Amino acid sequence: MRIVLLAAQSVDGFITEHDRPGSGFASDEDQQQFHAALRECDCSVMGRATYEVARDEIRKHLTNRRLRVVMTRSPAAHHRDVVAGALEFSSASAADIAANLRARGLQRCAVLGGSQVNALFLAAGLVDELWITIEPRVFGQGTPFVNQVLHARLKLESCDRLNADTLLLKYAVDRNG
Amino acid sequence: MRIVLLAAQSVDGFITEHDRPGSGFASDEDQQQFHAALRECDCSVMGRATYEVARDEIRKHLTNRRLRVVMTRSPAAHHRDVVAGALEFSSASAADIAANLRARGLQRCAVLGGSQVNALFLAAGLVDELWITIEPRVFGQGTPFVNQVLHARLKLESCDRLNADTLLLKYAVDRNG
Repeated sequence: MRIVLLAAQSVDGFITEHDRPGSGFASDEDQQQFHAALRECDCSVMGRATYEVARDEIRKHLTNRRLRVVMTRSPAAHHRDVVAGALEFSSASAADIAANLRARGLQRCAVLGGSQVNALFLAAGLVDELWITIEPRVFGQGTPFVNQVLHARLKLESCDRLNADTLLLKYAVDRNG
Repeated sequence: MRIVLLAAQSVDGFITEHDRPGSGFASDEDQQQFHAALRECDCSVMGRATYEVARDEIRKHLTNRRLRVVMTRSPAAHHRDVVAGALEFSSASAADIAANLRARGLQRCAVLGGSQVNALFLAAGLVDELWITIEPRVFGQGTPFVNQVLHARLKLESCDRLNADTLLLKYAVDRNG
């Protein structure tokens, strides 16, 4: 199973605009690209806070073609939201979640943030690709891309303009880095 | 006078690798590009900490073709380092430093960091261009690009590879942003 981490950020590396939750600052072209990338995945993982921000949208679009796993310390608190095979909650480690998805035969997993989930998957060496949209903004403050010290080395696979000012950078994570 | 802010950072927006001062993580190609960009400038501004890290190199290469101004709360503490017209120290605001350089007939000023000097020049609306090198690294921790909340909007002027994995992004700062 390939794991691709998808994020949109300011030039200075924030995935939220100041303390406003969600990626409302992202361009329409990023949103289109994001949904197209998601459609290529048969599963995704996100943090509890990221889920809460998008909960209504997510629940409206649930499908058995893409399992969504929400990482939370308290899966039981969300039992009413569970739709087996489409929306699940887990307190397992990133490695155990990845192993479980792999064991279920899934092929391509999107890691969707926030900071902590990004950091846990990167720190565990689980991420194959980083797809980062760089919006033409400087925030100075907000939710950082990851919330712990990391030593990740990347290889730039491609760099494309999504619109006049927005870039999509695709990196492979260098396992020897 | 045009003001261009030059920085090298990780993908996640840190201008130092963890707590290691300076931009030693930057590629040779970035260093070459940085020095070429500096040669186009007849003045530069940096913070005191940035100066301390590069002090020996800077003092070895002083020239009247490029005035270097170090922002510090205590200019008097550095009086032994002063070389009039080549290396000066100032406790003035970013706006007053820019006005002074302009009044001296200078044409192109490089802003060289760190976080605080970057933030002061951007917050005051003084920066015309941002040239940001994106090295293929994720640090998670380090000195941020700027150290205060900002609302800057940019226009992407160009995006070039300096080597296989390193990008140089040139942005104009949108004054109406």
